Amino acid sequence: MQASTVKVGVVQQAISGNDKHLNWQQSAAQIALLAEQGCRCILLQELHSTLYFCQTEDTDVFDLAEPLEGEAHAFFGALAAKYNIVLITSMFEKRATGLYHNTAVVYDCSTEIAGIYRKMHIPDDPGFYEKFYFTPGDLGFTPIDTSIGKLGVLVCWDQWYPEAARLMAMAGAEILFYPTAIGWDRNDTPDEQARQRDAWQIIQRSHAVANSVPVVVANRTGFELSPNGNEGIEFWGTSFVAGPQGELLAQASTDQPENLIVDIDLQRTEAIKRIWPYFRDRRIDDYGDLTKRWRD
Amino acid sequence: MQASTVKVGVVQQAISGNDKHLNWQQSAAQIALLAEQGCRCILLQELHSTLYFCQTEDTDVFDLAEPLEGEAHAFFGALAAKYNIVLITSMFEKRATGLYHNTAVVYDCSTEIAGIYRKMHIPDDPGFYEKFYFTPGDLGFTPIDTSIGKLGVLVCWDQWYPEAARLMAMAGAEILFYPTAIGWDRNDTPDEQARQRDAWQIIQRSHAVANSVPVVVANRTGFELSPNGNEGIEFWGTSFVAGPQGELLAQASTDQPENLIVDIDLQRTEAIKRIWPYFRDRRIDDYGDLTKRWRD
Repeated sequence: MQASTVKVGVVQQAISGNDKHLNWQQSAAQIALLAEQGCRCILLQELHSTLYFCQTEDTDVFDLAEPLEGEAHAFFGALAAKYNIVLITSMFEKRATGLYHNTAVVYDCSTEIAGIYRKMHIPDDPGFYEKFYFTPGDLGFTPIDTSIGKLGVLVCWDQWYPEAARLMAMAGAEILFYPTAIGWDRNDTPDEQARQRDAWQIIQRSHAVANSVPVVVANRTGFELSPNGNEGIEFWGTSFVAGPQGELLAQASTDQPENLIVDIDLQRTEAIKRIWPYFRDRRIDDYGDLTKRWRD
Repeated sequence: MQASTVKVGVVQQAISGNDKHLNWQQSAAQIALLAEQGCRCILLQELHSTLYFCQTEDTDVFDLAEPLEGEAHAFFGALAAKYNIVLITSMFEKRATGLYHNTAVVYDCSTEIAGIYRKMHIPDDPGFYEKFYFTPGDLGFTPIDTSIGKLGVLVCWDQWYPEAARLMAMAGAEILFYPTAIGWDRNDTPDEQARQRDAWQIIQRSHAVANSVPVVVANRTGFELSPNGNEGIEFWGTSFVAGPQGELLAQASTDQPENLIVDIDLQRTEAIKRIWPYFRDRRIDDYGDLTKRWRD
């Protein structure tokens, strides 16, 4: 870890079409703003190049995928080098014909890729047909070394799994990052919508608490129609940054594009782990069943 | 599960001395009130028989311990039978000379013990010298079968471990219960106190979210002096009940004895697990390192 405080930026965007070049330009404009304001690390939201295309199962959508070192790589790597920042992007990765991943790519002040994370837990529910598009990641829960520290990058559905955050923390992750794309069904009641958004924030803040590390979350905002005329998704924004006790340091609106800038004090983790040393007391002698599907 | 809704009661008490018979009478009075109001299940706070005695390390304190089927058992078993309730109590268990546990005891409408849970994760920090008093539990994370369902009873420090809640849920626990005793150091700033209490609530609400089960928490309230003249602990109360999305259903005050009564709809778990089926997608092929101390 190079410094005790790192200024982190989060970009929450609304996406209105599948012109990825236009969407990249819009991301680049926000990255420029954040870099000018001193951010050393910037997180983009999940699948920021396009609309959230998993609302239907459509083989033509595979045209949106790119190889790891494709056009998106050239574009965002150049930005990381230009602004001398750690940049966390998200992409629809074409690994081979018929083999695709939902992949986060990390750059570290260079056009080179510092590391990637392939989404390990893949959701599938009405409007979020990700199992059709993405093979579950095969790189495990491995932090990515950068000039600002070891970054535990996870993606969206991973956020519901304490196991994922724990394994990242145990491998030395100093900050957890979650690019996500989650929203409401407009048919749900306001109460149900509130419960869902709160659950989403609570579970991610809890990873900060359980592991005494900061958590940085970028979610998309805006309404995206479903291509098949179904309801569509109202992405709930609410990108946020939590400190190592789960405390909210910043939070974006539900319905507007917005950037967050937060100074994260990495020394807090050391202090918190001294007063509440959870890792000292884990009952690893009795955790074996965590690798079972169910205890039946 | 016998009915889709179960009325649960929580007793949050302030303890002013080590006269256990007096403290039991006070608990019994609240149990009577809750039973009269229709509660089918009642949770008492951690180590409710006495002051929180772990503020110092004192060999005389072992006199407070009892065998499993001792005086406390006779007293509380009789109440469970009298009121025809599931009753969850907490005790300083003397298992053998020199061998003690922090144990939750569950009664099911009978004077007999339905099951016990011995606290698995034992804390130790200034003012909470539990490792001096309690041997870590050796019964694992095993739910207790009762007439209202399978209960996942965990105790205080366990609350910080997602592993414990997960293992209970995977073994079929339908509700999680946490008797606890946690409070503030008065020397901490109000901001730090707020972060601690929030962290404590977030992590427990997150167990509801991660496992789609309700969570019931009883914490003590009131200030207890340290026997050695140190600062003492201001127990922060805030007993609460959360539903299977982590939503708060009821919450007690920080500083007053108080009972909670909540109708828990157990069918919600089924509904929530259908829309957000986390257990379907756990990456058990890559969770093996959870049984390590650290990934180094």
